[in-house]
Amino acid sequence: MVLDITAAAALLDPLGREPAEACRGERLNALMALGPDASRALRRALSRLLCDATLARQAAQFLAPIAGVELLSPVNIGDYTDFYASIFHATNVGRLFRPDQPLMANYKWLPVAYHGRASSIVASGAPVRRPRGQIRPSGADAPGYAPSARLDYELELGAFIGSASVSGQAVPIDQAESHVFGVCLLNDWSARDIQAFEYQPLGPFLAKNFATTISPWVVTLEALAPFRAPAFERPPEDPPSLPHLSSARNTAAGGLGIELQAHLVSSEMRAQGLGPLRLSRSRFDQMYWTLAQMIAHHTSNGCPLRTGDLLGSGTVSGPERRQAGCLLEITAGGAEPVPTPNGGARTFLEDGDEVILTGRCSREGFVPIGLGECRGTIMPAV
Amino acid sequence: MVLDITAAAALLDPLGREPAEACRGERLNALMALGPDASRALRRALSRLLCDATLARQAAQFLAPIAGVELLSPVNIGDYTDFYASIFHATNVGRLFRPDQPLMANYKWLPVAYHGRASSIVASGAPVRRPRGQIRPSGADAPGYAPSARLDYELELGAFIGSASVSGQAVPIDQAESHVFGVCLLNDWSARDIQAFEYQPLGPFLAKNFATTISPWVVTLEALAPFRAPAFERPPEDPPSLPHLSSARNTAAGGLGIELQAHLVSSEMRAQGLGPLRLSRSRFDQMYWTLAQMIAHHTSNGCPLRTGDLLGSGTVSGPERRQAGCLLEITAGGAEPVPTPNGGARTFLEDGDEVILTGRCSREGFVPIGLGECRGTIMPAV
Repeated sequence: MVLDITAAAALLDPLGREPAEACRGERLNALMALGPDASRALRRALSRLLCDATLARQAAQFLAPIAGVELLSPVNIGDYTDFYASIFHATNVGRLFRPDQPLMANYKWLPVAYHGRASSIVASGAPVRRPRGQIRPSGADAPGYAPSARLDYELELGAFIGSASVSGQAVPIDQAESHVFGVCLLNDWSARDIQAFEYQPLGPFLAKNFATTISPWVVTLEALAPFRAPAFERPPEDPPSLPHLSSARNTAAGGLGIELQAHLVSSEMRAQGLGPLRLSRSRFDQMYWTLAQMIAHHTSNGCPLRTGDLLGSGTVSGPERRQAGCLLEITAGGAEPVPTPNGGARTFLEDGDEVILTGRCSREGFVPIGLGECRGTIMPAV
Repeated sequence: MVLDITAAAALLDPLGREPAEACRGERLNALMALGPDASRALRRALSRLLCDATLARQAAQFLAPIAGVELLSPVNIGDYTDFYASIFHATNVGRLFRPDQPLMANYKWLPVAYHGRASSIVASGAPVRRPRGQIRPSGADAPGYAPSARLDYELELGAFIGSASVSGQAVPIDQAESHVFGVCLLNDWSARDIQAFEYQPLGPFLAKNFATTISPWVVTLEALAPFRAPAFERPPEDPPSLPHLSSARNTAAGGLGIELQAHLVSSEMRAQGLGPLRLSRSRFDQMYWTLAQMIAHHTSNGCPLRTGDLLGSGTVSGPERRQAGCLLEITAGGAEPVPTPNGGARTFLEDGDEVILTGRCSREGFVPIGLGECRGTIMPAV
């Protein structure tokens, strides 16, 4: 069920009413800008409302079955930054692009990131058109302009900025999470063949900016409090983080115990009534860098974060092949196809393929929390 | 003098009034979204107004001396893309970062670009704080976190998108310029030491996103019509552009004959009453890629451009050292300092240095057009 918060505002306790009014309109930006105290007050007020038998009966008129609700992109996104925070992903992908040096010298010192494109971020369910681009066949001198033949998904977590940071001021690591409103699922669709030709020296561009899909639900950090986890335990030979990227609190609880999955449904599987094929299953607490470290790094040069900015974590992969968060890793660059339940195989995505990302937190003694779904189906190139 | 267009709207001919009303508010986005016909009609109406002796007398009350006007950022910018379209700049810089391979294999096939940051774009005159970042001293294994010691400017042209493009649709090269509202000056401040450590494999990030300065005036493409120039003449050994990036019209007149300059005023020079030192002088028609090619490439994968998006051209450098558009090139990576008029020298920018970009078009028989100024002064790191 979906609750219409604005309609139910009069039923909320006084502290929850102002943030509830900020939910008016199509996007959450006004609520997000109010900061963590306001969203905490709203969450508490909503919880009281729905736990009180009398009030909940009154609120029932503002609940709608989710199946009848069209879910839009929740946030008006300003800047979108994509990190590269899984060392397993970076190593696996680096090995394919640069066998001599999979991991760059900077990787263990800073959370590598690049700016992505906000204009092509779409909500779950929007179709994804296969991009064309300049692709150079192996061994050829010249590229051609053709539909991507190596279209991939990337299983990521997204984080939305609530309170803005101040231009020129670095956010201290232990204040970093106060700028996070909440998280979503994010599919950073990637055309590997376009990427291979374009990405040097300034990074990925057209290989990524044709579409990025996010889940329409934002789960606040507060809701995730029971699922905090220690930061990734670095091997003793790795350098310690520089002071502005480290704190006792971050080491103890900078991680988030979210299990992420990616599933595939091809048009053949759909036609035959077959269920989805799980491609990826990984955990966000396996990331080399935490959300707090990403924000501390991002602002360490004074770069301002604004309400509604989106940070992608980068592909969430674990140490084992079945934990890899994209087909490039799973198929070792296309060399080892994945069998599908209908007797077919996949190296990269085909037209009609649907990719479904899910996320879930669970812990003994707590109600599990789902992150909703992030779906997209590949349409043929024009 | 500055004309208050909205206040003067009633004096305009009917076709100019609707676009004049769209100039209400702090930013030009509403006007830009109306497309090239509307801005052409407004330009024509304004020209008639100011050329008619009777009307011009009535309009005089809406003219204000520019010295008394605070110039803000003209546009609410969505996405900001920065290109790398000068082959002279790319070769000079590439040689410093990668002596073995200054120009990547893709350079002559596509206009290389990356996404920049919109949140830190400021208007001319805003101070620029020297960024801190992770810097690895030459020969060291580990980086430190320190103020940049190699802070640079980049002399660029910016282009604002007016009419949006359609998601999933490539813009044909001969329609590309209909999406450009106009141009400005752009200083892509760059911290070279931060850039050197962070930029692989995903491109520049914190080395650039602390600040980008734009001039507050937007000069429409129509105003630049008399200054069109042929596209850069490629050496015969270079590959011809792929069909979606080439057209007879682009070859004949895809260039813009804009002369760009960068000047330096240090605090010592200012104290001694010395005039500015010219650092760069280059021409936009020397760019390897035209604006139309940039837009055709940017949308070639279906990536949507929105009203208010900003494209940077990349540093505009010519073939000779004195035509180089940044200190990294001018000083050969800091090895050859530039003497300043007060007996000092510069490798990179020092605190108190002001950089002033200007642009100008001139042609026999036409009134020259200036692009205004793009200024920024370096403040000490915090």
